[in-house]
Amino acid sequence: MNGIDRAAIDACYEQALKSCNEGGLPIGSALTRGDAIIAVGHNRRVQQGNPILHGEMDCLQNAGRQTSYRDCTLYTSLSPCMMCSGTIVQFKIPRVVIGENSNFGGNEQFLRDHGVDVEVADDPRCIELMARFIAENGALWAEDIAD
Amino acid sequence: MNGIDRAAIDACYEQALKSCNEGGLPIGSALTRGDAIIAVGHNRRVQQGNPILHGEMDCLQNAGRQTSYRDCTLYTSLSPCMMCSGTIVQFKIPRVVIGENSNFGGNEQFLRDHGVDVEVADDPRCIELMARFIAENGALWAEDIAD
Repeated sequence: MNGIDRAAIDACYEQALKSCNEGGLPIGSALTRGDAIIAVGHNRRVQQGNPILHGEMDCLQNAGRQTSYRDCTLYTSLSPCMMCSGTIVQFKIPRVVIGENSNFGGNEQFLRDHGVDVEVADDPRCIELMARFIAENGALWAEDIAD
Repeated sequence: MNGIDRAAIDACYEQALKSCNEGGLPIGSALTRGDAIIAVGHNRRVQQGNPILHGEMDCLQNAGRQTSYRDCTLYTSLSPCMMCSGTIVQFKIPRVVIGENSNFGGNEQFLRDHGVDVEVADDPRCIELMARFIAENGALWAEDIAD
């Protein structure tokens, strides 16, 4: 975790909080290239009635068309689901930094098996926000992960 | 391949052709429940400058929030990439019918390993449309699969 890593995880948390304040799932994401955050995003299932817009997908959508992601890092407040993990592998994103994986996880090994460098920040703000949301919105959380 | 399968693969091809006529990548998708097509979609990378909208993702976006996909089949004119395959597994879609996998493929085993029933229609219209597009638009095709 270097300076841009910390700034990008802060951005993920801010995006998660923004989504929560909009009535949505509190999961945020950021994409960096070098020392610059080039896009942020957050889950928009509730806000746009859109099941594919997990935080990471919204962030990649907001980044628009990129020739390559080989010099990028993707950040997410919560460990990526299989949709987002498949996308990371397909887009050839070489590095992922995860805010926390205590509320959801399990695809880190899939990412590593496909050559992705995975780091977990164990950010207490991300853990607390997600845990509270799941406790208060179990049905919505189950819908978001098709549980 | 039953009656709804044939109708849904027809819809995939029509969506692919529509995208091609819009200047986009000719890949279409449909989602069925029972004997009804509940959504269609097509690749919109070019049309909306959006890298996550492969045909399957656009179709799932158009279907909106669903409580469950366990009684659904997803159809696609071209074998799904890892983003779309990850999404199929995450959304617990039990069956996928693929128009063709001669122009792109390789994730069918991943799907089967995760319990998805995969069928390949070997549709000559889908094969010909995609082959012609790749021959004429190599750079755009490479961008779409991050090659």
